[in-house]
Amino acid sequence: MGSIITLTTDFGLKDSYVGAMKGAILEINPEVKIVDISHAVTPQNVREGAYVLGSAYRYFPKGTIHLAVVDPGVGTGRRALSIRGLDHYFIGPDNGVFSYVFTDAPEETGPGAPRQPINVGEGDLQRLPRGFEAVTLTRSLYWRPQVSDTFHGRDIFAPVAAHLSLGVPLEEFGEPVSSVVAFPRPTPVRGVDGSIEGEIIHIDGYGNLITSIKASDLPDHRVETEIGGNRVKGICRSYEEGEGLLSIVGSAGYLEICEKNGSAAARTGAEIGNPVIVRPLSSLT
Amino acid sequence: MGSIITLTTDFGLKDSYVGAMKGAILEINPEVKIVDISHAVTPQNVREGAYVLGSAYRYFPKGTIHLAVVDPGVGTGRRALSIRGLDHYFIGPDNGVFSYVFTDAPEETGPGAPRQPINVGEGDLQRLPRGFEAVTLTRSLYWRPQVSDTFHGRDIFAPVAAHLSLGVPLEEFGEPVSSVVAFPRPTPVRGVDGSIEGEIIHIDGYGNLITSIKASDLPDHRVETEIGGNRVKGICRSYEEGEGLLSIVGSAGYLEICEKNGSAAARTGAEIGNPVIVRPLSSLT
Amino acid sequence: MGSIITLTTDFGLKDSYVGAMKGAILEINPEVKIVDISHAVTPQNVREGAYVLGSAYRYFPKGTIHLAVVDPGVGTGRRALSIRGLDHYFIGPDNGVFSYVFTDAPEETGPGAPRQPINVGEGDLQRLPRGFEAVTLTRSLYWRPQVSDTFHGRDIFAPVAAHLSLGVPLEEFGEPVSSVVAFPRPTPVRGVDGSIEGEIIHIDGYGNLITSIKASDLPDHRVETEIGGNRVKGICRSYEEGEGLLSIVGSAGYLEICEKNGSAAARTGAEIGNPVIVRPLSSLT
Repeated sequence: MGSIITLTTDFGLKDSYVGAMKGAILEINPEVKIVDISHAVTPQNVREGAYVLGSAYRYFPKGTIHLAVVDPGVGTGRRALSIRGLDHYFIGPDNGVFSYVFTDAPEETGPGAPRQPINVGEGDLQRLPRGFEAVTLTRSLYWRPQVSDTFHGRDIFAPVAAHLSLGVPLEEFGEPVSSVVAFPRPTPVRGVDGSIEGEIIHIDGYGNLITSIKASDLPDHRVETEIGGNRVKGICRSYEEGEGLLSIVGSAGYLEICEKNGSAAARTGAEIGNPVIVRPLSSLT
Repeated sequence: MGSIITLTTDFGLKDSYVGAMKGAILEINPEVKIVDISHAVTPQNVREGAYVLGSAYRYFPKGTIHLAVVDPGVGTGRRALSIRGLDHYFIGPDNGVFSYVFTDAPEETGPGAPRQPINVGEGDLQRLPRGFEAVTLTRSLYWRPQVSDTFHGRDIFAPVAAHLSLGVPLEEFGEPVSSVVAFPRPTPVRGVDGSIEGEIIHIDGYGNLITSIKASDLPDHRVETEIGGNRVKGICRSYEEGEGLLSIVGSAGYLEICEKNGSAAARTGAEIGNPVIVRPLSSLT
Repeated sequence: MGSIITLTTDFGLKDSYVGAMKGAILEINPEVKIVDISHAVTPQNVREGAYVLGSAYRYFPKGTIHLAVVDPGVGTGRRALSIRGLDHYFIGPDNGVFSYVFTDAPEETGPGAPRQPINVGEGDLQRLPRGFEAVTLTRSLYWRPQVSDTFHGRDIFAPVAAHLSLGVPLEEFGEPVSSVVAFPRPTPVRGVDGSIEGEIIHIDGYGNLITSIKASDLPDHRVETEIGGNRVKGICRSYEEGEGLLSIVGSAGYLEICEKNGSAAARTGAEIGNPVIVRPLSSLT
């Protein structure tokens, strides 16, 4: 249930798409609080939308409903989902946009539990993580009377979110599913020399390069980070330490490469997917 | 009345203009829910603002108050209006920003009713459509105590909207008017060969080209669409059908030209006002 | 206290930073109304953030809590503040972001009161203005359990704002301070010939050049304004008077240089800090 609905989309802020979606929600539940996470996800970039949602949802109160509509496959056979897990609700297309949410699921350690999530390639089907429930949105009773081919955000996802916020049980919206589309989480690789190789998973609006390497992957702060021919010594605790490029553990818990009062993306020319290597400083003498 | 106020402006998101306007509303009615439709209308582009408002307002609950401030004539003699019609309220300058709302008025079919809206040129005065009521905002009692020459959004429109949301009757804000400024709606022209010629009325943030041709204007889906030397066969039901440019009936009910995973605007170089021709495929042999 | 929290940041709208901060607020007070002033302050530009906040806060109801997070020094020793003054609350880093708020403090006229604010250079410490109270945020009881090095907006400022909105007294958050960082307000200089020299303090999204010269500094409207070699006669009352560049008293009470249906910034190439001179027209003959 919950009385907050968040929105993460690639609709941009120039057009009325976000407004129409909010109207469609408020027509059903005029009391619900709607909060924007972002509408400036790069158009059709499902992975970026997944990162943005994954780095924000957990700060909201339990029971919050998160609507994520980065949906290049709208109008095709791709499924529409409503999901419950980690004390939050999620609504959107079944195209990988919830991948980072799924990686927050507690690891399964029971007998026979797989040690790795079941996913093979890019955006393949995987088993719904433990503790999650999901249904496909098939009950048109909860949609707008007329559904356009191109705007399920307004015509299906928004009204379903509004009905969910009014207390309609998840199970009412359609049939349960046991597998969902997810991108494999980029997992850093550890070398025999103690180095860790990860990759850039996101570039934020400041030009900070967010890597797949988590704080818990790092032995300590006596390391050197290499990105595209640049080498950065140590790990800072603020953007004002050092000069030029610096490494820092960012607010989402990942190692980031930043530039003091500037853009590390502009300085390095780095792009999402580029490799990042962290080496212990002691191994460099 | 209503407890929701929507905002459509060209104020941008960099400055504090939107914030000041929201403050001015909340100072009078701290309980009202304020919803952004868009603040990224191209500066001074009244037609674009009219399209954005016109494609969003109907999704909000009945009684919603829509504030539209694209107002290059602020401080001149242009009138300020508060309007009731189609179960919604509209507040803003009398400069054509409500044109698309007026075209949603039911057509008048009674004896002597004109078949065409009374408008001659660009943004001329037309008779207030049937079922609408409007007043000019002249009662300064409902304004901020000090009114700047350049920001009636904050000093006149916002407080009037707030008072309206508190239940002050429309008639209280000023004298009734019977005519309003409106742009003529671009009407597609049908050729003797069954072709339909319309024009581009909006380009959205994805680069989709929205035309003046409505789904109901089309005979069926066996057509070819021509835009700036490009020819597109058929009409798709999703952005993932076909390759390159495609035609689709968009979420506002208009024929759109799109590019799969790209921008049709960038591909074609098309601009608002450019002609679009739809021909039956059978006539092409 | 107050049931409205406004946000002014340089976080941009692409990422989830704003969303995470709103979540952190709503987790503590799900009922509070959150209103964006701007998230598009130029990254790390504390002066611009100060101007944006300073030109919006006063339009909100008394008791509103204004959160301002333009915070390049996050993670260093810079202090974090919660401030009460002018019937509003302010929360953010002690780096000058509240400078324009402080200049709204009533001037001290008692015996021995200084005629000028006590500040020497750029962003120096000055005495907390009369009528203001401030504390440093040191009581971690009111923070998120885990505080990142780089995102005090989410981990310290947001929860403190939420607790303040729930009625926790200002004094609870930390120790009182009697001085704060503030930029000196750019004060126009009056020449012996009656001219006034000010500077550009802000360029808005329309390209309007906002100067440090207030309406009350002007003798009357028979003046000529010089900006970067351009001379503008008189002062208009609307953007539609005259052609090309024009002078107008803007909505924040400052003299602005604008271009009819265009951008004065693009036309003149002017930048923040550039001098602007206003001369009485009678002295020009």
